[in-house]
Amino acid sequence: MKKPSSSAPKAKPAGKAVRAPVSKLYAVILAGGRGERFWPLGRASRPKQFVDLFGGKPLIRHAVDRLRGLVPPSRILVVTSRDLVPATRKALPMLRPDCVLGEPEGRDTAAACALATAFVHRRGGPDATLCILTADHLIADPAGFRATLAAASGVCARRDVLGLVGIAPTRPATGYGYVELGAPFAGPGSAPGFRKVARFVEKPNLGTAATYVASGRFVWNSGMFVWRVATFEEALRRFRPALAQAVLDGILPAFGDERKLRAALDRVYPTLEKISVDYAIMEKASNLVAVRGDFGWDDVGAWPSAGAHLGSDAAGNAVHGLVSALAASDNVFVNTQDGHVLAAMGVENLVVVHTADATLVCTREAADGLKALVRGLGADPATARFVK
Amino acid sequence: MKKPSSSAPKAKPAGKAVRAPVSKLYAVILAGGRGERFWPLGRASRPKQFVDLFGGKPLIRHAVDRLRGLVPPSRILVVTSRDLVPATRKALPMLRPDCVLGEPEGRDTAAACALATAFVHRRGGPDATLCILTADHLIADPAGFRATLAAASGVCARRDVLGLVGIAPTRPATGYGYVELGAPFAGPGSAPGFRKVARFVEKPNLGTAATYVASGRFVWNSGMFVWRVATFEEALRRFRPALAQAVLDGILPAFGDERKLRAALDRVYPTLEKISVDYAIMEKASNLVAVRGDFGWDDVGAWPSAGAHLGSDAAGNAVHGLVSALAASDNVFVNTQDGHVLAAMGVENLVVVHTADATLVCTREAADGLKALVRGLGADPATARFVK
Repeated sequence: MKKPSSSAPKAKPAGKAVRAPVSKLYAVILAGGRGERFWPLGRASRPKQFVDLFGGKPLIRHAVDRLRGLVPPSRILVVTSRDLVPATRKALPMLRPDCVLGEPEGRDTAAACALATAFVHRRGGPDATLCILTADHLIADPAGFRATLAAASGVCARRDVLGLVGIAPTRPATGYGYVELGAPFAGPGSAPGFRKVARFVEKPNLGTAATYVASGRFVWNSGMFVWRVATFEEALRRFRPALAQAVLDGILPAFGDERKLRAALDRVYPTLEKISVDYAIMEKASNLVAVRGDFGWDDVGAWPSAGAHLGSDAAGNAVHGLVSALAASDNVFVNTQDGHVLAAMGVENLVVVHTADATLVCTREAADGLKALVRGLGADPATARFVK
Repeated sequence: MKKPSSSAPKAKPAGKAVRAPVSKLYAVILAGGRGERFWPLGRASRPKQFVDLFGGKPLIRHAVDRLRGLVPPSRILVVTSRDLVPATRKALPMLRPDCVLGEPEGRDTAAACALATAFVHRRGGPDATLCILTADHLIADPAGFRATLAAASGVCARRDVLGLVGIAPTRPATGYGYVELGAPFAGPGSAPGFRKVARFVEKPNLGTAATYVASGRFVWNSGMFVWRVATFEEALRRFRPALAQAVLDGILPAFGDERKLRAALDRVYPTLEKISVDYAIMEKASNLVAVRGDFGWDDVGAWPSAGAHLGSDAAGNAVHGLVSALAASDNVFVNTQDGHVLAAMGVENLVVVHTADATLVCTREAADGLKALVRGLGADPATARFVK
């Protein structure tokens, strides 16, 4: 691996009040998804990042706003699907329009990361540093989040490493990948708390997850990464040379010319290997460092977990909108239609979501299988319009 | 008691194909109620008799249509609340407008029966016979129903008796009043199956109800009665003289003049005793006869029982409208809003009713307490409009 460029700027130590630690820090927000887990509020045409139950603005707006003070809006890039570009630009008017990039089709995160890194390469050169972030998570402590990113981008700017922002686990979750932390990552340019990565573990069972959490050596793989352009491109060329060539040679030169870019994307994208950046790069590279992030991260993966972020009544119901409940407890009630009343009586542990054109009633447990229901609706010509 | 008028016509024996057995048979349909048990489809402004889930027409239309061949539309009277008169006339265009009579306020069934009998007195004279019927029940065998009414009206036209149409019980229901049948009602002018009434029993507990059903001697009190005008008026004057005087002297003479009638109702109605006809008359009179009706009567008292009359899917869900259910069983799903999808997953024994402006989710058990929820909504200024 090549050494960090001597032109990489010095990073300040991370702190609660941080400024950009690297002069060319970019943020890339990956905003894919079909919204199935948040049906009927989420739709293919309005996926999870547009769900606006939390704090009165869509999740993707939270994702941008929480970067304030760390990355200026002009250096924030959103990668989404092409048909969501107009809605995304509308939701994020502070972004440069050409910084909302639409993929003609989803090719998983390796392709999206390659595209984003190529874009930052074109805008900021090979020594620019970028954070790969998510569009649809909640973070309770944005200052802590910024401090973690600042520290990680400092390390990645100075050292030739791929940075992984892990999440300090708060429960033995079985729905996430885990990352085992190894030896401290020491030496010049590192920072306290940074460790080598010992191994990646796919979604464990409950017992295994519990031992992971108890050990203190594991973090959740959040899908948030930090790297310098040149470091990622080198790893990409090594582990996925076809993908590297297709994106860096086939698409990168087209940035800056909308017509050319669209043509390049249309030509190249369908040929790209569909693989996650974890499988394609992170689990193979040896120059990985991880930091344990502890900033109240929640992926609000489905309705039951979303309930924790809504208001709640005395009976433990999570409630949004006009809801009248009697002898009902531990439910999630969401009603987004003005003037419509949602009334519940005697029910427990349900998820009830009412929107103007569809109403969902399911158990908390069944909410995890919402994709199946939604795909079933999608397959039915009579109801497909409620999903699309 | 006076003898039946010699002008009372002879009745034909009851049969499956019947014609009016008495020349002056009238039918009175009592159509009160607030619709609370069928909220949100039922409202105070659209009570149960307007619920149109069954056979594509409102229950009150069923109540009129099933009289075809027994009573001509010109001799059918509906007594309802004054604010429901326009909707009732609209739902029943075959009725004479002056035969949809609006009470300025509900004063229970004794007053309504007195009013109806006075109306029939004015139209058909003291020897006319009338059936008091309900607006919000389903009857699976209308021909059997007509045959029973034909037989009962024949008996009541010929003999000075108050007729009660009992329902052969099909289960040990605890929500109905029971009537114990006594000795056969014999003699000239009677008909097979008519019996004296031994006693009325209020809603029994389950064990008692089971012994009643097993005995074969009990029927449910359906709220359907048959009598000759003069017979009822005599009982009314005897057991409720104030009510008799107020209605027969204060209101009866005003029939035929809309303005006068309205003034009379406004003046007299608020003064009327609020009591059921059962308590006021039937349980006191000794000249009662009852017949055991077995024509598939169902009071569809609340959502769970209504489900039995809707279509059902393979998993035992009663379904009306656009509903998509996955791993859901034994629910009642009603969706009356065109273009809206109701989706359910993993739920059991629920009642889910969606209308354009309100959605109900409750357990089958809780559906019996729907009145409380609806009254709670009504008390809340923010949501009262969904009830009113």
